[in-house]
Amino acid sequence: MMDFLEEPIPGVGTYDDFNTIDWVREKSRDRDRHREITNKSKESTWALIHSVSDAFSGWLLMLLIGLLSGSLAGLIDISAHWMTDLKEGICTKGLWFNHEHCCWDSDQVTFENKDKCPKWNSWSQLLISTEEGAFAYIVNYFMYVLWALLFAFLAVSLVKVFAPYACGSGIPEIKTILSGFIIRGYLGKWTLIIKTITLVLAVSSGLSLGKEGPLVHVACCCGNILCHCFNKYRKNEAKRREVLSAAAAAGVSVAFGAPIGGVLFSLEEVSYYFPLKTLWRSFFAALVAAFTLRSINPFGNSRLVLFYVEFHTPWHLFELVPFILLGIFGGLWGALFIRTNIAWCRKRKTTQLGKYPVIEVLVVTAITAILAFPNEYTRMSTSELISELFNDCGLLDSSKLCDYENYFNSSKGGDLPDRPAGAGVYSAMWQLALTLIMKIVITIFTFGMKIPSGLFIPSMAVGAIAGRLLGVGMEQMAYYHHDWAIFNSWCSQGADCITPGLYAMVGAAACLGGVTRMTVSLVVIMFELTGGLEYIVPLMAAAMTSKWVADALGREGIYDAHIRLNGYPFLEAKEEFAHKTLAMDVMKPRRNDPLLTVLTQDSMTVEDVETVISETTYSGFPVVVSRESQRLVGFVLRRDLIISIENARKKQDGVVSTSIIYFTEHSPPMPPYTPPTLKLRNILDLSPFTVTDLTPMEIVVDIFRKLGLRQCLVTHNGRLLGIITKKDVLKHIAQMANQDPDSILFN
Amino acid sequence: MMDFLEEPIPGVGTYDDFNTIDWVREKSRDRDRHREITNKSKESTWALIHSVSDAFSGWLLMLLIGLLSGSLAGLIDISAHWMTDLKEGICTKGLWFNHEHCCWDSDQVTFENKDKCPKWNSWSQLLISTEEGAFAYIVNYFMYVLWALLFAFLAVSLVKVFAPYACGSGIPEIKTILSGFIIRGYLGKWTLIIKTITLVLAVSSGLSLGKEGPLVHVACCCGNILCHCFNKYRKNEAKRREVLSAAAAAGVSVAFGAPIGGVLFSLEEVSYYFPLKTLWRSFFAALVAAFTLRSINPFGNSRLVLFYVEFHTPWHLFELVPFILLGIFGGLWGALFIRTNIAWCRKRKTTQLGKYPVIEVLVVTAITAILAFPNEYTRMSTSELISELFNDCGLLDSSKLCDYENYFNSSKGGDLPDRPAGAGVYSAMWQLALTLIMKIVITIFTFGMKIPSGLFIPSMAVGAIAGRLLGVGMEQMAYYHHDWAIFNSWCSQGADCITPGLYAMVGAAACLGGVTRMTVSLVVIMFELTGGLEYIVPLMAAAMTSKWVADALGREGIYDAHIRLNGYPFLEAKEEFAHKTLAMDVMKPRRNDPLLTVLTQDSMTVEDVETVISETTYSGFPVVVSRESQRLVGFVLRRDLIISIENARKKQDGVVSTSIIYFTEHSPPMPPYTPPTLKLRNILDLSPFTVTDLTPMEIVVDIFRKLGLRQCLVTHNGRLLGIITKKDVLKHIAQMANQDPDSILFN
Repeated sequence: MMDFLEEPIPGVGTYDDFNTIDWVREKSRDRDRHREITNKSKESTWALIHSVSDAFSGWLLMLLIGLLSGSLAGLIDISAHWMTDLKEGICTKGLWFNHEHCCWDSDQVTFENKDKCPKWNSWSQLLISTEEGAFAYIVNYFMYVLWALLFAFLAVSLVKVFAPYACGSGIPEIKTILSGFIIRGYLGKWTLIIKTITLVLAVSSGLSLGKEGPLVHVACCCGNILCHCFNKYRKNEAKRREVLSAAAAAGVSVAFGAPIGGVLFSLEEVSYYFPLKTLWRSFFAALVAAFTLRSINPFGNSRLVLFYVEFHTPWHLFELVPFILLGIFGGLWGALFIRTNIAWCRKRKTTQLGKYPVIEVLVVTAITAILAFPNEYTRMSTSELISELFNDCGLLDSSKLCDYENYFNSSKGGDLPDRPAGAGVYSAMWQLALTLIMKIVITIFTFGMKIPSGLFIPSMAVGAIAGRLLGVGMEQMAYYHHDWAIFNSWCSQGADCITPGLYAMVGAAACLGGVTRMTVSLVVIMFELTGGLEYIVPLMAAAMTSKWVADALGREGIYDAHIRLNGYPFLEAKEEFAHKTLAMDVMKPRRNDPLLTVLTQDSMTVEDVETVISETTYSGFPVVVSRESQRLVGFVLRRDLIISIENARKKQDGVVSTSIIYFTEHSPPMPPYTPPTLKLRNILDLSPFTVTDLTPMEIVVDIFRKLGLRQCLVTHNGRLLGIITKKDVLKHIAQMANQDPDSILFN
Repeated sequence: MMDFLEEPIPGVGTYDDFNTIDWVREKSRDRDRHREITNKSKESTWALIHSVSDAFSGWLLMLLIGLLSGSLAGLIDISAHWMTDLKEGICTKGLWFNHEHCCWDSDQVTFENKDKCPKWNSWSQLLISTEEGAFAYIVNYFMYVLWALLFAFLAVSLVKVFAPYACGSGIPEIKTILSGFIIRGYLGKWTLIIKTITLVLAVSSGLSLGKEGPLVHVACCCGNILCHCFNKYRKNEAKRREVLSAAAAAGVSVAFGAPIGGVLFSLEEVSYYFPLKTLWRSFFAALVAAFTLRSINPFGNSRLVLFYVEFHTPWHLFELVPFILLGIFGGLWGALFIRTNIAWCRKRKTTQLGKYPVIEVLVVTAITAILAFPNEYTRMSTSELISELFNDCGLLDSSKLCDYENYFNSSKGGDLPDRPAGAGVYSAMWQLALTLIMKIVITIFTFGMKIPSGLFIPSMAVGAIAGRLLGVGMEQMAYYHHDWAIFNSWCSQGADCITPGLYAMVGAAACLGGVTRMTVSLVVIMFELTGGLEYIVPLMAAAMTSKWVADALGREGIYDAHIRLNGYPFLEAKEEFAHKTLAMDVMKPRRNDPLLTVLTQDSMTVEDVETVISETTYSGFPVVVSRESQRLVGFVLRRDLIISIENARKKQDGVVSTSIIYFTEHSPPMPPYTPPTLKLRNILDLSPFTVTDLTPMEIVVDIFRKLGLRQCLVTHNGRLLGIITKKDVLKHIAQMANQDPDSILFN
């Protein structure tokens, strides 16, 4: 595509790494561009086609993002499934089959014995040709741990060598980037490739982590890379962020098969600037991604969603009590997790620990694998576990969790009445309790290691286990004590009163809510999993309780906590600034500092300006009429100034150190034999934002947030007094919250 | 509840009717209030309880809004159902039963003949004791028209006499109010009562209108009235608008039984300022409202949704072609409807027509009723019609639309293969075609009359009819020509390939989208009706096509068009301002006008100021250091100034016309025997927003939108130059769009 808008001096209007973008300027530039294309479109057919293609390029980009991220998600699902099974054995029919596909057409598979099929060989069968006895068990155990260690080692090494940005969930960084910060390479192609590969490895290694958060990162990488194909998005940081918001929605959409939930997640949790146009496009991208994933069909069930559940029994109002209890549990777990995880991550940052990421990962993997193998609920992949916990026991279910004593065979339809638990259920309860403890402890140490790791799945697993335990407990109580006052009004003997799977689901929502503090998006994702409005109220009750409990114990969600831990310059849009300070308390220079460094509009020479540039590190300078009046004319960026002067010295004949720089519209006639002047009005921002010194900081913070400013000038009775940068605002907020203001690292 | 923050002078900080609020000031005031309560909460237990109750009052309010609007919606549904049936006859079992309830336990009811039951008597039975023959038909016809006229007459008279604001759908006005405009009484208790009653009457009269839009108005009235119980919301216009946004969500939620769709509708279509906290609360209110409605169970089917549909057949990719055709039809209908309806409404406003609202309503009702009675599809209520059109024909369906020839009796399950249409289907097609034409024409004249009238249901009906016609056509084509290339790959003979109900649904979405230009919320509402992600892609394809087609023919949706027609000061948040004008082109005073009227901070007497007030009509004045320097100090509102001076003259001893007004922090020592000074710094806004004269208008518009400003001062090199009010911005936008700038009536 042609570019109609050539910039006068290359480099002017771009940003350095680790800098904040100026949303207002970026959006102005896009509007200029759009205006120019629209105006030209009347001139020729070619320009008209260009104008139309420009208008539709956003949709095309969304389509591509949806296709690419859906395909990648499918690829990741399939590979992770295969590699997870590789820890247990291989398929002799073909190495590329996973356990399930291997046994697909086997005749010997019955409902009772569906995991056994002759084509699938466990490691003990392959190596010592037996599956019985302690030795075989040890061989399998050993191979399981060995594969886990191998996968983990590969993952951490790849991340360390090729793409350090590929570690973690990526959501804190994406939030920061979307708020207008530049981290070059964070969404680049290397990060994409390495994150995709290492995500598969990390998930397969059996660590307590999920692929949902990293999938958001993968989708955003896709979005960022695809932006390069379109001038409209490549050259404009603000437009590109709109695309990234949509990509984040597509990421969640493929993670859970929940397109609407994905869009709301992007809106609620990730995005900063989310105009309505983006809402519509995000929805499109999320849908395309979900349907691409479905046509790849990695779960083999033609379903869009990761955990498809169908419940048959309505819930009773009394059950809100256990649901709220689960909410409290979720809130407590969320607050506990965030505190301990942040403390551990801080330790990793500040002590020797952080220097040995490979060893750390290997140790945690070894411990996880050794503890996991003996317990079938920790051995299976976490998403399988959640699936099983969400499942409502049917007649034909062979799992231990559904091992009820069959008193009532006369049940009709698929509805099974509540039954007394059999031995299988009791042993499953014990194993689940152990799994719960292990998941709680190990996840704290896992999240934050130098491998891709998501939090959604482990959090949901913790909640689902707690929920299922409580659900089975309630069910047995209702069975044995259906004459109690709390039950007898609605639960007669032999009726199906309690659905333990629903409790697991509510618990999962509560724990996920406690950790991430998601609200509407969480409920909507869960709603999309069940597909029935029926269960929204329990989910909402649990999510609300969980958020309130967790908020009472600590304001920040895990992503915000990690943003603060890493010192990213993120201006929280949700939190109101509640202190009664004024702009004059925050602005630079402070009361006893030297005066603000300014440029004058028509009296400084190139040398003067260069001195100012070299003596200061400010990223921009106000331009005033004269130093005496301090009447503001405009604002000029350091980077633009340096580039322009350099350019002028190279190209413009005769510009020397004694040339006078003019920011005015017309330079006055010069006496002969003076050096030619340098006119720089074109790089001057003639509409800098100003506030008065008595403006309350709450309003200033609001302006920074809503307009996406990088800096704002402070005046008093019309005279320029000082400047407030985004960094000053962030430092001030940190200070007011009794935090270390210097933890804000970047400007 | 106590009020901690007593205002120094009553009236300062409030607004006149038909004025625009200052969001920044309102939000500041709320933060001050919150801060005070938080600070006091540490002092005593009572204050702590107050602080907690204050924090939870928002949730309580949401609960109340949900309960009230859900109950009202249930009441409206039940009464409208009963009164619609009253046009046809009455129940001898009890007058209060509607047709359906009357025949509930009747033995004679069979599937073939379910509308006949002995307890239900049509008017001809009651009056002339027969149901057969032409005379009976004429009696029924006459009674039908008579009741319709009676209902319509009552509705229009009640609206005219008691609450003129109760007419129309209310959504354009609510959008304007939410954007920060004050229309006293628009959401008051009289409007609520009259709108509820007349809505029932209007729906029952059989006019081509729906109750969905007015339900949003009803819910917003509930929200506004309930706000009066809570200090936090009663006294703060900005906070109250957050509540109204949530109430709008509750309104749509009860209208369709779609809580998530309701929230997104509020976000996408109605709201202006929608922080995340409001999202969560809106969701809560929408859920409570939906469940309240469900427990009232007005549709008698225990379903939450108005049109519950369940489809069994997946759609095929090829079907996207007819779906997109439906999208094009929807877009064309939307654009046509908006143009003609606006033209007709303009005629009503400008000609004699507008002076006879009662006659107009009676004439339209008479025409509608006379045309409607002979055709069963126009005689039934529009929502029933839509329900029937959405319905997938089952084995036991007795309706004419399902009168297929039964070739294949060996169908298993509920799936019926495509069959050749019987005589019933063909006659239904003809009747539907006539219905389509009638609805299209009559709706144009109905929407905008002086009765409550919503657009959702008529638009959906138009689309559903068109969709069903196309769907049946496709079905028959697939049946008779399953060997055609477009069918033979996926549709074998005797298979169930085409679901005409889905076409109706897609058509309804397309038409609704064309008229309202909703996007995500539309798809989500439709998704909640079907409950399956499966059908999102067809819905989205149709909605997208419809929006693009309609946008190409006219940028505005029906609500925006009505806002513009009525000249409400609404600053559209979706549309980008695309022109390259500067702040100096828009500000007052214009180049040749007299200078800006300013006050000086320390040299004007009470008399001077009073002269300025009486000689101008500006709603505020900038305060400067001195007229020579034009250095800006602050901004003072006319209303505050008048109230303060009046108050000072009354109470403060010795303030006379020659007293000097000081806006400075300290007034200088005065010589003896001079009249006492009047200090007015407390009413001075010390942080007025300023932009430079060279700021592009696109940025100014952005600031006005995002910060919700009422006015903005313009400076040049630090000197005050002019002022831009919201009205100036709106006028400028209208001017740039080649519209009459004076159509903006209010300031």
